[in-house]
Amino acid sequence: MSQPQYLTGQREALQEFLSKYDIFLFDCDGVLWSGDHLFDGTVATLEFLRASGKRVVFVTNNSTKSRKDYCKKLEGMGIPATEEEVFGSSYSAAIYISRILPQRHPELKSKPKVFVIGESGIEQELDSENVPHIGGTDSSLRRLGINPEDYTKIAAGDPSVLDPEVGVVLTGLDFHFNYIKMCLAYHYIKRGAIFLATNIDSTLPSAGALFAGAGTMAAPLTMMLGGTEPVALGKPSQAMMDAIEGKFKFDRSRTCMVGDRANTDIKFGLEGKLGGTLGVLTGVGTKEEFTEGDTRPHFYVDRLSDLLAAKEA
Amino acid sequence: MSQPQYLTGQREALQEFLSKYDIFLFDCDGVLWSGDHLFDGTVATLEFLRASGKRVVFVTNNSTKSRKDYCKKLEGMGIPATEEEVFGSSYSAAIYISRILPQRHPELKSKPKVFVIGESGIEQELDSENVPHIGGTDSSLRRLGINPEDYTKIAAGDPSVLDPEVGVVLTGLDFHFNYIKMCLAYHYIKRGAIFLATNIDSTLPSAGALFAGAGTMAAPLTMMLGGTEPVALGKPSQAMMDAIEGKFKFDRSRTCMVGDRANTDIKFGLEGKLGGTLGVLTGVGTKEEFTEGDTRPHFYVDRLSDLLAAKEA
Repeated sequence: MSQPQYLTGQREALQEFLSKYDIFLFDCDGVLWSGDHLFDGTVATLEFLRASGKRVVFVTNNSTKSRKDYCKKLEGMGIPATEEEVFGSSYSAAIYISRILPQRHPELKSKPKVFVIGESGIEQELDSENVPHIGGTDSSLRRLGINPEDYTKIAAGDPSVLDPEVGVVLTGLDFHFNYIKMCLAYHYIKRGAIFLATNIDSTLPSAGALFAGAGTMAAPLTMMLGGTEPVALGKPSQAMMDAIEGKFKFDRSRTCMVGDRANTDIKFGLEGKLGGTLGVLTGVGTKEEFTEGDTRPHFYVDRLSDLLAAKEA
Repeated sequence: MSQPQYLTGQREALQEFLSKYDIFLFDCDGVLWSGDHLFDGTVATLEFLRASGKRVVFVTNNSTKSRKDYCKKLEGMGIPATEEEVFGSSYSAAIYISRILPQRHPELKSKPKVFVIGESGIEQELDSENVPHIGGTDSSLRRLGINPEDYTKIAAGDPSVLDPEVGVVLTGLDFHFNYIKMCLAYHYIKRGAIFLATNIDSTLPSAGALFAGAGTMAAPLTMMLGGTEPVALGKPSQAMMDAIEGKFKFDRSRTCMVGDRANTDIKFGLEGKLGGTLGVLTGVGTKEEFTEGDTRPHFYVDRLSDLLAAKEA
């Protein structure tokens, strides 16, 4: 396995590196910031890339936020960004459903109705692609418990509870996850709906600790279905790369993925056959992983802002 | 692998079969009834066994009901039963926690406090063994969503949300399952609590269809924990057999498990090295499974009431 090239402090190598790519895909947490702390030089580095004619894209598995919401988050962190520069797993799912599924499943209506387990970010992105949906933030499903009528209606396939037009179940992070949603999703899939997930991260970092990630909404269904996994549309799934490509029509050989995790970000770039992958040491991944692990980036730097050394003096 | 003996219509063989056992452990759904339909001859067969001096025990994975609740269900189906004859997975869990855990984990207090994901059946059974517990039906945890304060308090290990005395997390079927319970359970386990489940059935039959079973409350935690499975205390786990033995002090060689499912009921009896296992063909298992499958009972009959043919004319 080849050794990644270490670029920190190597002006000529940095300049050559930058000259190879037109688009940089960025993982965010661990690369641009950590938790609530923006790294020094993040904003200047992004500005330098943009000023050099590069396109930057923020690639996030956060499914609770739409691109618009995520832009606000970026701006709240002090990072200027446009909605066009954000690519989240909810948007990835919406693109996949509206543009890719109809090709792969000609038996579906061109835009099948989606039963959503998740928050408003998913709904906003489905709306942006004109994909019809139910579930999600519907207040009638935001309740605990199940009553005898639910059992009999679901068992009977009553169209007042099981919409016959649903052709896709999409699970994402849902803080309002509950028993009835789990049962409805199961019945839709058993009736033939395609099982998708915005992403299947097992945990969600918040306040310096880990909480339940979007994968915990898919896991019970996988168990009920006897092991059937969803098609996941976030990193490192290549379905997300396909969706990014569907949106930007980029040249993969001129694209570089930047991230801190070998097994998600770097893997995502390598399996997507991007021209380059850049590891940073400000997050989860270590120098040992990048240089001795199974999944190695093409390049690595101590921190993202080390790219600024490519500037002419 | 040996062939099971077919007993239907064989009076002498039936009499010999009955003479071998003092205790009969019964699975219920598929053996005594199906859904809401009590099989003809169920009551007469149970009465015949009791009149012949046999002890009958109803062994159920239903964790939402205490023994008392389950007795009412049996009586509602027309089957006379006493609380002493019922052994459910919640009671199994309570026995395991109060009598077996302290031996296996001497570092625990003799009765560690339990964080419960489940309904009142679990709480009643923990109470019956004087095991302290929190969570469960606590109304403060019956809410959807999570707020910023929850994140910071959980992350900080605030004792007002994470009780330092909790040494066990017990998951069972919870119709009020939600995000906050999932996160609390995860943090308790990460802090060292033992991860138990009343049972891990993936589905729950009701109204002729399948709904989410108790396993769907454990599956998200297993995912968050990177694959750690709970110790399951329902069939076919031998922890349940140990708990039954802890209660009845029976002679395994003089005990017979009766069930319709090869992979749960029959497996439960075989792995528990009971003297006998009897398959019935009124539920999930088929003659082919019983005679050609990997898990074969010692004996099988078409239906439970075929045992009545052992009566002297």
